Amino acid sequence: MSRPQRPGGTELRRLIASLLVVRASGHLGDAQRRYPRWELTNTELQRLLSTGVGGVILLGGSTAELALRCRQLQRWAGQTLLLCADVEEGVGQRFDGASWLVPPLALARLHRHAPQRALALAERYGACTGRDARRAGLNWVLGPVCDVNNNPANPVINVRAWGEDPACCGSLAAAFIRGLQAEGVLSCAKHFPGHGDTSCDSHLELPVLPHSRERLEQVELPPFRQAIAAGVSAVMTAHLRLPALDAERPATLSAAVLTGLLRQELGFDGLVVTDALVMEAIAAHHGAGEAAVLALEAGADLVLMPADADAAIAAIEAAVASGRLSRERLEASAERRRRALADVTPQNGATETPHPAEAAAQPDQALEQELVEACLERQGPAIAVNAAQPASGGGVNLLRLDQALLAPFLPAGAPALVLPQAAGLRPCLLAAETPSLWQANAEAPLDLERLGEGPVLLQLFVRGNPFRGGAGTAEPWPAAVRQLLAAGRLAGLAVYGSPYLWEELRPQLPADLPAGYSPGQMPRAQAALLGALGLGGGDPARAATAQAQAAPAAAKGAADQGFTD
Amino acid sequence: MSRPQRPGGTELRRLIASLLVVRASGHLGDAQRRYPRWELTNTELQRLLSTGVGGVILLGGSTAELALRCRQLQRWAGQTLLLCADVEEGVGQRFDGASWLVPPLALARLHRHAPQRALALAERYGACTGRDARRAGLNWVLGPVCDVNNNPANPVINVRAWGEDPACCGSLAAAFIRGLQAEGVLSCAKHFPGHGDTSCDSHLELPVLPHSRERLEQVELPPFRQAIAAGVSAVMTAHLRLPALDAERPATLSAAVLTGLLRQELGFDGLVVTDALVMEAIAAHHGAGEAAVLALEAGADLVLMPADADAAIAAIEAAVASGRLSRERLEASAERRRRALADVTPQNGATETPHPAEAAAQPDQALEQELVEACLERQGPAIAVNAAQPASGGGVNLLRLDQALLAPFLPAGAPALVLPQAAGLRPCLLAAETPSLWQANAEAPLDLERLGEGPVLLQLFVRGNPFRGGAGTAEPWPAAVRQLLAAGRLAGLAVYGSPYLWEELRPQLPADLPAGYSPGQMPRAQAALLGALGLGGGDPARAATAQAQAAPAAAKGAADQGFTD
Repeated sequence: MSRPQRPGGTELRRLIASLLVVRASGHLGDAQRRYPRWELTNTELQRLLSTGVGGVILLGGSTAELALRCRQLQRWAGQTLLLCADVEEGVGQRFDGASWLVPPLALARLHRHAPQRALALAERYGACTGRDARRAGLNWVLGPVCDVNNNPANPVINVRAWGEDPACCGSLAAAFIRGLQAEGVLSCAKHFPGHGDTSCDSHLELPVLPHSRERLEQVELPPFRQAIAAGVSAVMTAHLRLPALDAERPATLSAAVLTGLLRQELGFDGLVVTDALVMEAIAAHHGAGEAAVLALEAGADLVLMPADADAAIAAIEAAVASGRLSRERLEASAERRRRALADVTPQNGATETPHPAEAAAQPDQALEQELVEACLERQGPAIAVNAAQPASGGGVNLLRLDQALLAPFLPAGAPALVLPQAAGLRPCLLAAETPSLWQANAEAPLDLERLGEGPVLLQLFVRGNPFRGGAGTAEPWPAAVRQLLAAGRLAGLAVYGSPYLWEELRPQLPADLPAGYSPGQMPRAQAALLGALGLGGGDPARAATAQAQAAPAAAKGAADQGFTD
Repeated sequence: MSRPQRPGGTELRRLIASLLVVRASGHLGDAQRRYPRWELTNTELQRLLSTGVGGVILLGGSTAELALRCRQLQRWAGQTLLLCADVEEGVGQRFDGASWLVPPLALARLHRHAPQRALALAERYGACTGRDARRAGLNWVLGPVCDVNNNPANPVINVRAWGEDPACCGSLAAAFIRGLQAEGVLSCAKHFPGHGDTSCDSHLELPVLPHSRERLEQVELPPFRQAIAAGVSAVMTAHLRLPALDAERPATLSAAVLTGLLRQELGFDGLVVTDALVMEAIAAHHGAGEAAVLALEAGADLVLMPADADAAIAAIEAAVASGRLSRERLEASAERRRRALADVTPQNGATETPHPAEAAAQPDQALEQELVEACLERQGPAIAVNAAQPASGGGVNLLRLDQALLAPFLPAGAPALVLPQAAGLRPCLLAAETPSLWQANAEAPLDLERLGEGPVLLQLFVRGNPFRGGAGTAEPWPAAVRQLLAAGRLAGLAVYGSPYLWEELRPQLPADLPAGYSPGQMPRAQAALLGALGLGGGDPARAATAQAQAAPAAAKGAADQGFTD
């Protein structure tokens, strides 16, 4: 830059940079990046870290690779970094090799009839996530979600929430925080002041929450109060507008929300971090630099994923020069960052084993399984397809997914594929990018002719997910289930993910229909649910055995067997 | 075991065990295994390696994780292991992070008009694969394929071969071997005495090669002779029957083939390794133990993937006790193994960088790109969809795949998805497990009504692959192309993989149809081919820019953007 160096200029820029958290891939190589639009190159990362950027948010790769990656970033930075990830459902949700747990809303359902067990499991959930995160090199988990999911059509929070009412949400989130922090990892309550009652996705547009201050006090705020009481390390802001608190600015950029409500009224003195500034709700309305300045002015300590880190640093520097932001204000944020890191940084250079990354691939399978089993629901008899004669009958294993190409829960050998295959049911995927099976007939929405002959096992993988533009409940599955029942072709129903679709379908299911629900979509949940419905074993090991024992003819078609060529 | 210990019993068992190569996942954790039917657990691996098992074949995981994995296995073994993988098309073909190169048959096409360039590229292909393998911890690449692919319907060799005629095959394979071995990595010519003229898959059944000895001398054997002359480290046997050489036994178990032909006539004194004994062609006809004994009796040195390692060791031990196999015979094989390892083991404990695994994620992008560009074919003008107004027109990006759930060449953000999307073409996947678009009409085989409105970009991902049961040429694509042309809806055609389908379609394409062929299916090949056809840039970086610049509305639908929630 040609700007003249003022005394303390470099030091000020390092101070400012330390408040930025930039985005990187968890993979080591640039070519492995899955989202080059968002993920910095290694050259860019190295440069930014050398100028003092203080945090990195990571996505992608296995836990072993992530452990190497975190050490690499740490080395480039030369200071202790905040290393964080969106691993709300266990580190295995995002990074292969660690524990992948049922989504939080599952425990809220359990909490209705077994609150103590749910609370104990939530604390173990946090501990497991903390241990896995630490082993993988992360020191900050961006969870728990403290939003109350009181809107089943919420496309972005949904099963990520710890409940549908404030008390349940708050207690479970607090238990998660206790478990997580006991493992020496920072937490983050999000999305303040509450993102549960929205029906649009702030990744794509800016939601408005029209509630009064009284209503916020009753519904949205209690879980955050409980999280703060439990000592939560950080609070993440929501990209939504609350006219009752600030007529103009979204929460992320609002002094009334961050300073007035969060700092002063709720008395939170930990780290306040913005949600990703690159998200459409903010990025579309403010420049990369100005958004960062507004967030700090409003009271945020850390700026997550600025659309342009250099522009953000330059704009903040200019805001200090012009008097919009005081240096003391930034120092206070940096001090909160230092305090947080001091809580989780081993004091006397932790001795490393010869192969530290190997430890990152040791998931807590017992907890994974206990959670799956505790939250499973089923009804009706076993599925009546003849597993002994896979070749004889034949039928369809109809799987509904959001996206066929992005279904990490359906790797080669996934129980939802191989267990039905062993029983003679050929897979048929219905997703956004496959040919449709829908027809314009409200009473008979499925084109059964195109589906093919035989009994149908219906497996619906449905849950709210950012960017998918819906909670997955828009398709006419109730009518489709009635249609399959009327045709005498529904052999069984499995719903994975959204409890709302399950609740909607359940009343119309005959008592003798094998049917079940699992909040989790991962292979372990598939094995448990299909096992409970009479297909194969109830755990992955048994499912694998079932796969191995399946007639070769059935196994062949299932997937590339992946052995030597 | 209750068997009484004879003097030298343990030593003999270690000798026997050293000749086994067992299968493991490249992932560190048991739960990450994708093929638990074939991949040993860590407990089993540790036990077998401690008893002296001498080699491991690996699949799955990133190169960084593989590097950790190889060090782990080495540590468990306490001796230098043979660590191998089927990385015929670059290490990146199987392990994320390394170079992923166009399949060998691409260079055979180039060899027709530019033999010197093809030979130079084949040598760099080998060097790149060797360097990547070494960085990832492997010391043995199971390539080159020396089969002459003179049968376009070959479902298992196909584009993996270095040519369709013996001279081309042999020269390119020898160049590959020179490049590979110069990097200090062992090679393996396969599948002896030639698997190119088969139309069934030995993973599933036992093919028969009905040729005379004269014909073998003319077609099948020359590439192996050239590989041996180039100093190839090992030769892998084929699971197929050649009645002209052995009326009874498949090559893998035939003394006439392995000892008579390979050792004595061709004078090969390197390692002879079986193809995987667990493959159906062998496993279905012999027990796990007996198959291993028969292979060693026939002249093999190493037994790859015995169906049961313990049974193989016990059976070989019994065969020595009964005099079927001599200890000297096994010692000679062990000596060949030692010699091979001595060639590639650093003499004075290679000094390791602080983070050795990081180096594993540095692909040779320049070679990747040069190979893609050298082998690209195209014709006609640019595709005429209005990239400037993605929302206006609309149309279909029809992608034909083998399997929608196992398409590593279509990760999030793959150019074959995002470049057409940015031009307003919505993706539609046609694969084995999606609803069909075919209808019973020989002249009009595609159900266009179900496909939806607008121009169609047709992208055919077709190549021979083990286990897929065909070379992908059974579907009526020539008629489908005629149908789309007649309907005035074909906006462009891209064929990735098989040259045979491209050659079949090409004569019927009008001169003004934008069309092209790439032997590679990976994202880099997609970016190059679609770039050449006028959609987005010609390399991934430019394609990523195109993705970033695409209208948000188009990008949104393309894939989960994967950033912070």
